[in-house]
Amino acid sequence: MSLPWDRLLAERATRIRPSLLVDFDRLPASDELILFSGGAPPLECLPVEKIARALFDAWHAEPGALGYGEPQGYEPLRAAIAERMRQRGVAIDPDDLIVTNGSQQGIDLVARLLLEAGDRVVVEAPTYFGALQVFEPFDVQIASVPVDDRGVIVEALERELSARPRPKLIYTIPTFQNPSGVTLDPERRAALVALAERYGVPIVEDDPYGELWFDRPPPPPLRALHADVLYLGTFSKTLAPSLRIGWLAAPRRLMKLLVDAKEGADIQADRLLQRALARVLADEWFEQHLAAARARYRERCALVLRGLKRELASLATWNEPAGGFFIWVALPEGVDTDALLVECARQGVAYIPGSAFYHDRAPRSTFRLGFTTLSPAQLDEGIARLGRAIRAALRPDRA
Amino acid sequence: MSLPWDRLLAERATRIRPSLLVDFDRLPASDELILFSGGAPPLECLPVEKIARALFDAWHAEPGALGYGEPQGYEPLRAAIAERMRQRGVAIDPDDLIVTNGSQQGIDLVARLLLEAGDRVVVEAPTYFGALQVFEPFDVQIASVPVDDRGVIVEALERELSARPRPKLIYTIPTFQNPSGVTLDPERRAALVALAERYGVPIVEDDPYGELWFDRPPPPPLRALHADVLYLGTFSKTLAPSLRIGWLAAPRRLMKLLVDAKEGADIQADRLLQRALARVLADEWFEQHLAAARARYRERCALVLRGLKRELASLATWNEPAGGFFIWVALPEGVDTDALLVECARQGVAYIPGSAFYHDRAPRSTFRLGFTTLSPAQLDEGIARLGRAIRAALRPDRA
Repeated sequence: MSLPWDRLLAERATRIRPSLLVDFDRLPASDELILFSGGAPPLECLPVEKIARALFDAWHAEPGALGYGEPQGYEPLRAAIAERMRQRGVAIDPDDLIVTNGSQQGIDLVARLLLEAGDRVVVEAPTYFGALQVFEPFDVQIASVPVDDRGVIVEALERELSARPRPKLIYTIPTFQNPSGVTLDPERRAALVALAERYGVPIVEDDPYGELWFDRPPPPPLRALHADVLYLGTFSKTLAPSLRIGWLAAPRRLMKLLVDAKEGADIQADRLLQRALARVLADEWFEQHLAAARARYRERCALVLRGLKRELASLATWNEPAGGFFIWVALPEGVDTDALLVECARQGVAYIPGSAFYHDRAPRSTFRLGFTTLSPAQLDEGIARLGRAIRAALRPDRA
Repeated sequence: MSLPWDRLLAERATRIRPSLLVDFDRLPASDELILFSGGAPPLECLPVEKIARALFDAWHAEPGALGYGEPQGYEPLRAAIAERMRQRGVAIDPDDLIVTNGSQQGIDLVARLLLEAGDRVVVEAPTYFGALQVFEPFDVQIASVPVDDRGVIVEALERELSARPRPKLIYTIPTFQNPSGVTLDPERRAALVALAERYGVPIVEDDPYGELWFDRPPPPPLRALHADVLYLGTFSKTLAPSLRIGWLAAPRRLMKLLVDAKEGADIQADRLLQRALARVLADEWFEQHLAAARARYRERCALVLRGLKRELASLATWNEPAGGFFIWVALPEGVDTDALLVECARQGVAYIPGSAFYHDRAPRSTFRLGFTTLSPAQLDEGIARLGRAIRAALRPDRA
């Protein structure tokens, strides 16, 4: 064979970030492994009947939607999304939105528009590994700005923004961040937007969790503070991941290029599914669904927080998120949570190690716990196993 | 505003190819415009009830498929696709396939894997504009190899393959080509594959129309001649464009990287839709559906060919396709079909001008007629209008 697969594999394997979904299967897992790796609604929060019925109705109401069309997305769905965003303080029109295959494709479209090889990109540290999956193959320099319990640290951000070459974008998850669970406070939101404007660097705001608060709504999105913020939303967390419907709000003058880029990527989103979602958003049902999901996630988060206190109070620290899907746990400096994961899996429990959320992939002493996909009984048992495994690894004398 | 949108728009507008779907709306159109621009099944060929029922059943059978999973695609669907490919002479397993959002995303995934700025890419001239939409933003050199009535011209191809830098891929639509309607003959198929192997350049075979022959099946896909051919298939033309489900067959050793790239692009395809399609392919229905579609398209193609002979016999030449969706019409050299389109639209008829199918976008004397989306009455009237408009433009003395 003279085809150049060997050279290609050697070159590309360093550029394309391996999928977590696939590689997670390589753990020494048993059937009873309790996975805190999930970042999705649980089965019982998936509105099967509601969406199945809406889809069936949409197909019968408008079979012509099986054809090509609407590369920017179905207008009534964009209108319903814009209305929800207005209720969160964002002044926006349906024409400011393009429908994407989840927010993952939104990140990709923004990257296609803004990035070239050699550019600099600012991300939070830690950050969503799916964003790194998008940015890294563009062969860009990735500048990581640390996050503390108030969100991204503004002084560190300014150092990166003032350096040359000027970054081409700031990617941030300001609300119930993945993986840290942290929410950027209002003062820092204002400072972040002011810095972005001062240095002329676009903000890409990824907001999959903003509607999934526990006790009270978070501060309005950054997009409410500045119309040039590129905003990414999705129904993956509020309805169902498999739907693959999200949206990107962008300055109107960029929209034509984004629609062209979407067409180059995969032509258009599923038109009948978009019609079904417009039906789902048209009545009170969605608010009731969100209220039920919020209550469920609040309860599960509290259960995990109690379990952590019981099992790991003297060995670890963690945040107390006000919404979203994740708790971020820090073990003493020097602990390698990549290595520890193998030990935990032997005990029947798994998390996502901190290394997955950094560009350098170096081992860290942190890990992410997703608490939404497991039942209360699984959460309790899982945290007990986690406690045993970590105590055994860190204090073998007392195990 | 200090954000760099002006600079960005100036830079990117030259790199991102404008969408045809969008820009077509800018013609001086009337409500009665007869559009030969379509490349899709007509409304009456869309199997609404069959797919709606399969989708509804799939949702009820496996609601858990609303979650994350299967980034390579649903295994029973991949198995059904592999079985259909085997029936066309391609030795292939389900694990050699990844499910994509139509073949458009397949082209994009291949480009992500194989291309970097400065690389060379070989395409046919003319070629599918959606492939140019993918390749051009990678900032690659595009080498165009002409097509004649037996398909791509092998001697011209060899000149491009032997030049340096060596091309990174050959993109070809060997069967019922878009836009030319031409099918690569068996002798040239063998020569193309041999050349690709000799020069070590991967073939990307796009095959959206191969199942839509008129009188007899076309030669087997190039993938049947060599296991390293990257093969793209789709249900957009055989079932419905809006489904956005296609597939990419690739050498097994590339699959992990392709799955990772798919996850970076948009995580996964719609899992319930994949289950619905697996049901649709599970019985005799799909073959019957294809047989009915073939008969309908054959009849419409023949009707347009008769009309062209009646209206334009002395002014134009065209091919007689053996399948697919398109007839390629050539006017005398020097005619600018971009300019002529405006005249035709004033007469109530439109085509896609040849310029859309070339990297250089220069005006050409050719245009594409899509004959599947219009009724027989529309086809008749449309060709009559086309004849009047072209005769008036080319022979104003006799108009």
